[in-house]
Amino acid sequence: MKIGKATVPHTAISTSNEDTIVVRGEDLCKDLIGKISFTDYFHLLVTGSRPTPAATAVLDATLVAIAEHGLVPSVQASRMTLAAAPDALQGAVAAGILGCGSVILGASETAGRLFIEVEERAGAGGDLDAAALAVLQEYRAARKAIPGYGHPLHKARDPRVERLFAVAREHGANLHYIAIAEAIERQIPQVIGKDLRLNVSAAIPAVLLGIGFPLPALKGVPILARTAGLIAHLTEELEQSIGFALSYQATRELEYDGELPAGFAATASHS
Amino acid sequence: MKIGKATVPHTAISTSNEDTIVVRGEDLCKDLIGKISFTDYFHLLVTGSRPTPAATAVLDATLVAIAEHGLVPSVQASRMTLAAAPDALQGAVAAGILGCGSVILGASETAGRLFIEVEERAGAGGDLDAAALAVLQEYRAARKAIPGYGHPLHKARDPRVERLFAVAREHGANLHYIAIAEAIERQIPQVIGKDLRLNVSAAIPAVLLGIGFPLPALKGVPILARTAGLIAHLTEELEQSIGFALSYQATRELEYDGELPAGFAATASHS
Amino acid sequence: MKIGKATVPHTAISTSNEDTIVVRGEDLCKDLIGKISFTDYFHLLVTGSRPTPAATAVLDATLVAIAEHGLVPSVQASRMTLAAAPDALQGAVAAGILGCGSVILGASETAGRLFIEVEERAGAGGDLDAAALAVLQEYRAARKAIPGYGHPLHKARDPRVERLFAVAREHGANLHYIAIAEAIERQIPQVIGKDLRLNVSAAIPAVLLGIGFPLPALKGVPILARTAGLIAHLTEELEQSIGFALSYQATRELEYDGELPAGFAATASHS
Amino acid sequence: MKIGKATVPHTAISTSNEDTIVVRGEDLCKDLIGKISFTDYFHLLVTGSRPTPAATAVLDATLVAIAEHGLVPSVQASRMTLAAAPDALQGAVAAGILGCGSVILGASETAGRLFIEVEERAGAGGDLDAAALAVLQEYRAARKAIPGYGHPLHKARDPRVERLFAVAREHGANLHYIAIAEAIERQIPQVIGKDLRLNVSAAIPAVLLGIGFPLPALKGVPILARTAGLIAHLTEELEQSIGFALSYQATRELEYDGELPAGFAATASHS
Repeated sequence: MKIGKATVPHTAISTSNEDTIVVRGEDLCKDLIGKISFTDYFHLLVTGSRPTPAATAVLDATLVAIAEHGLVPSVQASRMTLAAAPDALQGAVAAGILGCGSVILGASETAGRLFIEVEERAGAGGDLDAAALAVLQEYRAARKAIPGYGHPLHKARDPRVERLFAVAREHGANLHYIAIAEAIERQIPQVIGKDLRLNVSAAIPAVLLGIGFPLPALKGVPILARTAGLIAHLTEELEQSIGFALSYQATRELEYDGELPAGFAATASHS
Repeated sequence: MKIGKATVPHTAISTSNEDTIVVRGEDLCKDLIGKISFTDYFHLLVTGSRPTPAATAVLDATLVAIAEHGLVPSVQASRMTLAAAPDALQGAVAAGILGCGSVILGASETAGRLFIEVEERAGAGGDLDAAALAVLQEYRAARKAIPGYGHPLHKARDPRVERLFAVAREHGANLHYIAIAEAIERQIPQVIGKDLRLNVSAAIPAVLLGIGFPLPALKGVPILARTAGLIAHLTEELEQSIGFALSYQATRELEYDGELPAGFAATASHS
Repeated sequence: MKIGKATVPHTAISTSNEDTIVVRGEDLCKDLIGKISFTDYFHLLVTGSRPTPAATAVLDATLVAIAEHGLVPSVQASRMTLAAAPDALQGAVAAGILGCGSVILGASETAGRLFIEVEERAGAGGDLDAAALAVLQEYRAARKAIPGYGHPLHKARDPRVERLFAVAREHGANLHYIAIAEAIERQIPQVIGKDLRLNVSAAIPAVLLGIGFPLPALKGVPILARTAGLIAHLTEELEQSIGFALSYQATRELEYDGELPAGFAATASHS
Repeated sequence: MKIGKATVPHTAISTSNEDTIVVRGEDLCKDLIGKISFTDYFHLLVTGSRPTPAATAVLDATLVAIAEHGLVPSVQASRMTLAAAPDALQGAVAAGILGCGSVILGASETAGRLFIEVEERAGAGGDLDAAALAVLQEYRAARKAIPGYGHPLHKARDPRVERLFAVAREHGANLHYIAIAEAIERQIPQVIGKDLRLNVSAAIPAVLLGIGFPLPALKGVPILARTAGLIAHLTEELEQSIGFALSYQATRELEYDGELPAGFAATASHS
């Protein structure tokens, strides 16, 4: 079935003949394996060009900052999945990645869009605080959430945010989107009535847009980072499984608030 | 429901208090962000210790070697999934990862087990060729496939194999498992009757076991590598979608060999 | 980590003690197994009550209408995934389900929301065509797509739409949302300038809202239906694999439009 | 890239022209929608033929028996995934399905293979107990687990097993595989030294092989059934989220047994 424009497919990422695998115009075996780091290769794959030293530093720092944060829900989901299906590591990784949605980490792309709106509103050399205020008021009027600000645990800025900004400064990366992110942070109390601080989902686009990383690929960065963390957890799970223990603990205080058939005596056991 | 031993869950990967996120005993913000590459952090996460320079070189080379190989089936599945569900990048990545199974790339772990069997058979200082022959004959007797040898395209060794071995040699990594892998390659014709060459699924454990990467984590390396390639393809897909074009092409010559109701006139259109 | 309100979890779906499994207030073994069809049980599970005979008929018809439509992209993705990872049937089903997104079938929920907007606009006994016109004009002004209308293949209404509406009429189901769906269809040419016909994504909420199926569960109906179709395809795939053949065909005309290293001679081979 | 035999793909499940969608030789709109239940359609899709009344009864009973069993690990994984990514229902369903692996429910297929081994060993009219004993002893010698026997909660048979067998008897289904399953149950104490009772993973193939359901499709039955239960849980999750509450409870007693940096003071908070 043709759906939409059914044409000849094409790609600019990779091709090969019998002797040579080409990736982004380079010879994989001659120019890349052993000569480029995985981080730089990820940049080349996604953007089509090798990173500057500043871009390498910022991309490495970002991937390191968000790869692991303990037994968060998606890690629990992944470990439970491996406990139930230990033969399919790929399935457990997939289950963990499926939790990289709009609520957790997924705000990096929407926060990036917000920054670009403020950038466009300010224009060249414009007042970032005024532009931030105007855009925030529009979000407020349209009842849209402000992505990337506020944190359930940290009242102060998440310490990872400070480090990411410091890495960008130390390596001479473009700091324009950090300036925008901080302008928004300054204007939020006036619009929202609360002092919401920049969280890591806003810091990611603030530093990555500054190294020219494309907006549509922003969501991919937390996914790649978290995959590394998931593999560590799943390796630990294979050695000493806690997937079912987590699941048991999760329901120890579970309350059933539905109906019961006549004669059913509730016992301590829950399903 | 308690399934298996329901106990208190525990982990050695990460913990945190209000100020500090600890990963593998190090302070994430002070010691890791901006100070360690993503590759080295992956090694730290999985193994609990930082890599040697040789280990960094080999791990980077391996991840680069297998991250991307064109529009292979799992990339197609991923791009079709994004075309159908463009709002959920995480779903398309997950679909692509679900194809990292036993047939494609997944043989790295089983090949690693084969190498360790040969290593144990040979014992300290033993004859690797004799051990390889004995183990291969047992596989043959038990009708088990030999994982990591043979390739649908390449009669000669996949050029990525040579490069991975060269990187291990150049950086002074332990070459013991490469020697085992090559001993197996030499003995295969005698046991199988065909000249099957080492493919990349055997090269991965050959070099990674040599840097002390744990066997249960081997499967995770192609998954992490492929995630980088998938994100590149999905970024391209968001810009210029070919998911439905691939699907259209795939069924242009599709034949229906089931029954038809009376009066059904086959037309050029396929479902 | 507490995210949002960390409280005691509760559920109204199921509980159990050592003797009895309770589902929605009924005893699974005594009252349900062998006494209720899977379709009626699905209704009970989702809504908390057993369906009327009209609801059973409409729900069965809907599930049958959308379970299978040939080698659509999500079925291809699923079969390619099984070919690459034949040991993990659950992974291939998951890959197929991940394509049930906003573009394919996923419009049933958004179309349902559109119908409820028109219903609320019309009020009790109000003019549905006038309400439809007003709501469509608002969608147009906000540049929102009209979900559930138009089809790449069929200029006339998809024949499945007529059958679903006929089943609802034959069994005396509430036809109010069908009336709304048809009012929208009549008003579309005036607002859009094109004659877009009701497709199956609009027919699903039109009949299911009429049997009291809840709006948030609408997206689940295509997912359950497609799972049945996927299992049929994957059973066929296990017997006679076409996953790699589909993938081969998909890229036969693939064009590489990226850069090439010096000396690379393009050959017929792609990947 | 050609992988394996790259030929023309073919299918016997479905085709269509501009007017008619054909499924398994029948006209979807004329013969199936409104005229066949979803359960019967699932049978038709998978096997190519409509079920007998006994087969309908047994297939319905099986699907109802295993669709829902409370907040089991895969349901928790699914609800946590939706809490983190509420826009992608398909992702949360997929995460739940990925837990339908070898440990939970997935044993239905391996148990079915065991029954067929016993059947073949016994031959026509042979002694099932003797055949069961012989096959069990071979499993024991090869250190293979006996799939489908034993249960973490129930010392007696799971009550769902009795009900499934009763439904098969009431409707005159072929009881041969039930007889095999019970012969194995009788012989287990002698071989294993423990009294492991038939669990639901053995009951599924015992009744489904008796209605001619194909062995390779057995794993699909729990997946379809569980999808119905998952959709109920995810509908409840959308209305009243417990995904993060489950995750919070799961780690309340989490112990960190890794290293700590100097000066880290453990607090009550865990990651």
